[in-house]
Amino acid sequence: MAQRPETPLLDRVSFPSDLAQFSDRELSTLADEVRAETISAVSETGGHLGAGLGVVELTVALHAVFDTPRDKIIWDVGHQCYPHKILTGRRDRIRTLRMAGGLSGFTKRSESAYDPFGAAHSSTSISAALGFTMARELHGKCPEGLGDAVAVIGDGSISAGMAYEAMNNAGHLGKRMVVILNDNEMSIAPPTGAMSSYLSRLYAEGPFEELKAAAETAASLLPPPLREGAKRAKELVKGMATGGTLFEQLGFSYIGPIDGHDMDQLLAVLRAVRTRATGPVLIHTITKKGKGYAPAEGAADKGHARAKFNVITGEQKKAASNAPSYTKVFAKALIDEASRDEQICAITAAMPDGTGLNLFAERFPKRCFDVGIAEQHAVTFAGGLAAGGCKPFTAIYSTFLQRGYDQVVHDVAIQRLPVRFAIDRAGLVGADGATHAGTFDIAFLANLPDFVVMAAADEAELVHMVATAAAIDDRPSAFRFPRGEGMGVDMPERGVPIEIGKGRILREGTKVAILNFGARMAEAMIAHEELEAHGISTTLADARFAKPLDRDMILRLAREHEVLITLEEGAIGGFSSHVLHLLAVEGALEHGLKVRPMVLPDTFIDQNSPKAMYDVAAMNAPQIVEQALKALNIAGIRDLRA
Amino acid sequence: MAQRPETPLLDRVSFPSDLAQFSDRELSTLADEVRAETISAVSETGGHLGAGLGVVELTVALHAVFDTPRDKIIWDVGHQCYPHKILTGRRDRIRTLRMAGGLSGFTKRSESAYDPFGAAHSSTSISAALGFTMARELHGKCPEGLGDAVAVIGDGSISAGMAYEAMNNAGHLGKRMVVILNDNEMSIAPPTGAMSSYLSRLYAEGPFEELKAAAETAASLLPPPLREGAKRAKELVKGMATGGTLFEQLGFSYIGPIDGHDMDQLLAVLRAVRTRATGPVLIHTITKKGKGYAPAEGAADKGHARAKFNVITGEQKKAASNAPSYTKVFAKALIDEASRDEQICAITAAMPDGTGLNLFAERFPKRCFDVGIAEQHAVTFAGGLAAGGCKPFTAIYSTFLQRGYDQVVHDVAIQRLPVRFAIDRAGLVGADGATHAGTFDIAFLANLPDFVVMAAADEAELVHMVATAAAIDDRPSAFRFPRGEGMGVDMPERGVPIEIGKGRILREGTKVAILNFGARMAEAMIAHEELEAHGISTTLADARFAKPLDRDMILRLAREHEVLITLEEGAIGGFSSHVLHLLAVEGALEHGLKVRPMVLPDTFIDQNSPKAMYDVAAMNAPQIVEQALKALNIAGIRDLRA
Repeated sequence: MAQRPETPLLDRVSFPSDLAQFSDRELSTLADEVRAETISAVSETGGHLGAGLGVVELTVALHAVFDTPRDKIIWDVGHQCYPHKILTGRRDRIRTLRMAGGLSGFTKRSESAYDPFGAAHSSTSISAALGFTMARELHGKCPEGLGDAVAVIGDGSISAGMAYEAMNNAGHLGKRMVVILNDNEMSIAPPTGAMSSYLSRLYAEGPFEELKAAAETAASLLPPPLREGAKRAKELVKGMATGGTLFEQLGFSYIGPIDGHDMDQLLAVLRAVRTRATGPVLIHTITKKGKGYAPAEGAADKGHARAKFNVITGEQKKAASNAPSYTKVFAKALIDEASRDEQICAITAAMPDGTGLNLFAERFPKRCFDVGIAEQHAVTFAGGLAAGGCKPFTAIYSTFLQRGYDQVVHDVAIQRLPVRFAIDRAGLVGADGATHAGTFDIAFLANLPDFVVMAAADEAELVHMVATAAAIDDRPSAFRFPRGEGMGVDMPERGVPIEIGKGRILREGTKVAILNFGARMAEAMIAHEELEAHGISTTLADARFAKPLDRDMILRLAREHEVLITLEEGAIGGFSSHVLHLLAVEGALEHGLKVRPMVLPDTFIDQNSPKAMYDVAAMNAPQIVEQALKALNIAGIRDLRA
Repeated sequence: MAQRPETPLLDRVSFPSDLAQFSDRELSTLADEVRAETISAVSETGGHLGAGLGVVELTVALHAVFDTPRDKIIWDVGHQCYPHKILTGRRDRIRTLRMAGGLSGFTKRSESAYDPFGAAHSSTSISAALGFTMARELHGKCPEGLGDAVAVIGDGSISAGMAYEAMNNAGHLGKRMVVILNDNEMSIAPPTGAMSSYLSRLYAEGPFEELKAAAETAASLLPPPLREGAKRAKELVKGMATGGTLFEQLGFSYIGPIDGHDMDQLLAVLRAVRTRATGPVLIHTITKKGKGYAPAEGAADKGHARAKFNVITGEQKKAASNAPSYTKVFAKALIDEASRDEQICAITAAMPDGTGLNLFAERFPKRCFDVGIAEQHAVTFAGGLAAGGCKPFTAIYSTFLQRGYDQVVHDVAIQRLPVRFAIDRAGLVGADGATHAGTFDIAFLANLPDFVVMAAADEAELVHMVATAAAIDDRPSAFRFPRGEGMGVDMPERGVPIEIGKGRILREGTKVAILNFGARMAEAMIAHEELEAHGISTTLADARFAKPLDRDMILRLAREHEVLITLEEGAIGGFSSHVLHLLAVEGALEHGLKVRPMVLPDTFIDQNSPKAMYDVAAMNAPQIVEQALKALNIAGIRDLRA
């Protein structure tokens, strides 16, 4: 373990109220210590590093100026909250970040009163802040009281429509609230979209370096009411006397851009706003992702997310890989299909690296669209591409597809447009916890008429499902696959389309049937072996399709076995519900068949290793065996052996 | 039937290509004829009137200037498309609008090649247009060819985040496409939000009346490239020489505002754009909803939606009401609760009238929030209000809740915030057809941990469910109810909270159990009577809750009956799936019970009367009876009688 940094000032801080003892100069030093502590902690835990380092000064300044938890600081996405957690009573647990039983990697209401609104998906903070603001107006009964609401949102997050909707509403309601635009020209990937260019122009028109002196005296220059004052401050800072920013057009007073690493500027502006604001204010700060840690600043992603690392060298300690990741297998398979079919194109909503589309974009730059954090648009845009005769693949995490659900229903399914959804991070995802779990997509897609819904049992199947989706040209389709590595199976030369609605039997047995949908197959195989080893003849089937179901295969399994176990990495309402429905309407449940649907449980599962999370979910091999034995009225394998 | 209008020019038009025969002056006359034809048709069919009347000139001008269906005109929402349908080969069926087997009230791909992208939910048009634009760049294989894409979007629709996401992306990609902002300062209700004020300011800065002459010559004034030209045109039209509009900041060339009822202006600007545009262009037209028909222009909603009416007087022919509508019952019950609890507040996304919240707002103006067409924001804003100690009721149609699904999961459910969802238009909705059906909400809500999901069997139950939701203070809840009138049951003095997860038995029987969730209760009662009349002892139960289920009641029903029929106005994955899951894991399916889940079928059902739609869905009383008889191996009631 690397030596811990010296933090004499930080050692005197348990809660934000302790910041009152420090001079402005000391707050600046404190920020340096918080930065060192953040780097040290993340080197031990891994996690989101760059974003937190970019807001260290802002975090200290906010807690020095505002009165939390009465005032509500709402960190958009929340992955930049580690410095905030260090200052709000959680420093003693900061080295448990993202670990089982430890602190969440995001803000979380159940963790602290200083986290008034949890996050993890982007662009929600302004809506939540407006909610707190109007609750204050209505005298809502909040235990901590209701002071000012402050949303801190990045330039990537503000490109999502939801942030715009919230600003539009906040500008209309006109109540006092603060939005801090943390502009680092870098969300996860380099930013895209017109908004990003616009912010760059704002900055170019009045870079703060030249105007630092003016900004430093902003406080004294701001006369009440602030709306007027903000205008004057902006004139000074931006050197413009005319026009209005987009934010002003939406009803916000605009202050900025200011240097988000300059404590004096931050304190001056925040104090002025706190003292004098009467309506919605947007403070535009320029920060540097990864600030103050050379290995992060120098990285292409500015240290966005890191495995555990050596503090001195920045070298990450990643576990050795055995098999290719599902994400890479998908990307490679799509590139392969696209090399033979020039109508294939791909869409990501600001996740080119996470979805593997960065590889696709390298090969086919014109056929890859990064639309920004804009899932609603991403889906309908894909619908337009399909209506225009292209073959779009929308690559998206299960949890983020929820953002475009109406568009999937309305613009894709009802119109029966052949948009392909490549759904990554299906099932439980590990350290990101409940907010990123891919739990609900089977249920919310498989009840859409004519949709084809597939799940890959292993990485070779994924290759074939990419080929299948490419071939499905008359209706929408989706295939899901999990986070992480494949099983290490032999890989096919190229993908071959699977017959729609055809599952496969992997092992034939007579007593128990395990009907698996998706990547629990590895566990299902172990369970199968275990059962067979103890004399229980067991069939193992790969459903491949939640829709359309392989009716013949499933009805045969029901007829020919005593127990039918279904298995899927999804919540109730999905694959098992479709199977039960089929069996019910076909009258196949009336002859004593014991059906045991195994789905993700009715609870949000906290972060842990995926394997441990599936233990909590009771969906690993031992629990599959247990289901079979219980259904057969056998007490357990030990009894069986005796 | 009123006399049909004289339409000598229109009679010479079958398809848009026929417009080439007319001079500009004749096109203006043609527009008048199209207006008269639209009024005449809607007087016979009922439907959306005001929006179509507002775009008559625009419709004629677009089809005169652009080359449809090669060029793609995409009408946002699509309820303004009646004039478009009249000009695109569907005049002969225009008097079947919204009727069974007739034309859809929206654009629809399956109806015509001139409808390149269907709609009905708002704010999708720019995304779709960008999809066609990029498909053209990629040489997509579209049978009609790929020319220019033109999105026509209202000032209400453009306030949705999705439209902003699309503009942000289109501005970035920089390809030639056209967005026509149809600004009538009136979407359904008067508009709300900062965007709306902004548009008003744009208009105030350069009202077109004074500058008509300048705009009329816009075409000749526009030098290539258009981006420069647009700037000059705007300077002329708006009389401004500095600054940039919000649209320009997002990367669009801005032209306007122009008079959307002045054919000369429209033709000049559209021709200039078609000839010379190189990148994305936004044309800002000012129109009048209901234009040219006094009874519509004079109405508060500008003739938004109309029953059949008398053309001369505008008087609507509405069927006499027997019972209060569910919507009104909800509104009244909420007002009653709010009068006793000042923490209760209400949120609508631009549907104050449709949801009944206009009544709530009259009584409690400060506690009612119309956030605009912004469902994502609406949900998270409600989350913020709940976190701030208020008791928010988000009143929304089932179909529109799909727009805020991730926010329901992420910002409400994971945080276990007590946001109440009042879900109107649950189930099939009649003339609005498949796009407005409330089909999927049971499935996509009931698998969220800790959510309470209720459905009202009648309007008295709805009153109690409002009270129940008000009392649920520790987790999210939802209650759903259908479009239309209640059953006419006795109404309670005030709502009394129902015990969470408790259903009720309405009739006790022994052989068949009908377990109903929601407003199919009327049909279930008829089926019950029919079965009893023929000697089949039948239990009738009201589940009330899809989550948490009344486990005891359901397991008892399963134990004590030969047949168990579940019934719900929703797709597979919802109530019946939860019941089947419970029965499976409890081993209650292994003793011969015949379960027959009745859910909405796996198809999108076209517009018709709700009753006829439920016939298509096979979910009326005769089909319930049939399910019971089939399960009992009885051929039919006739046999039974014999």
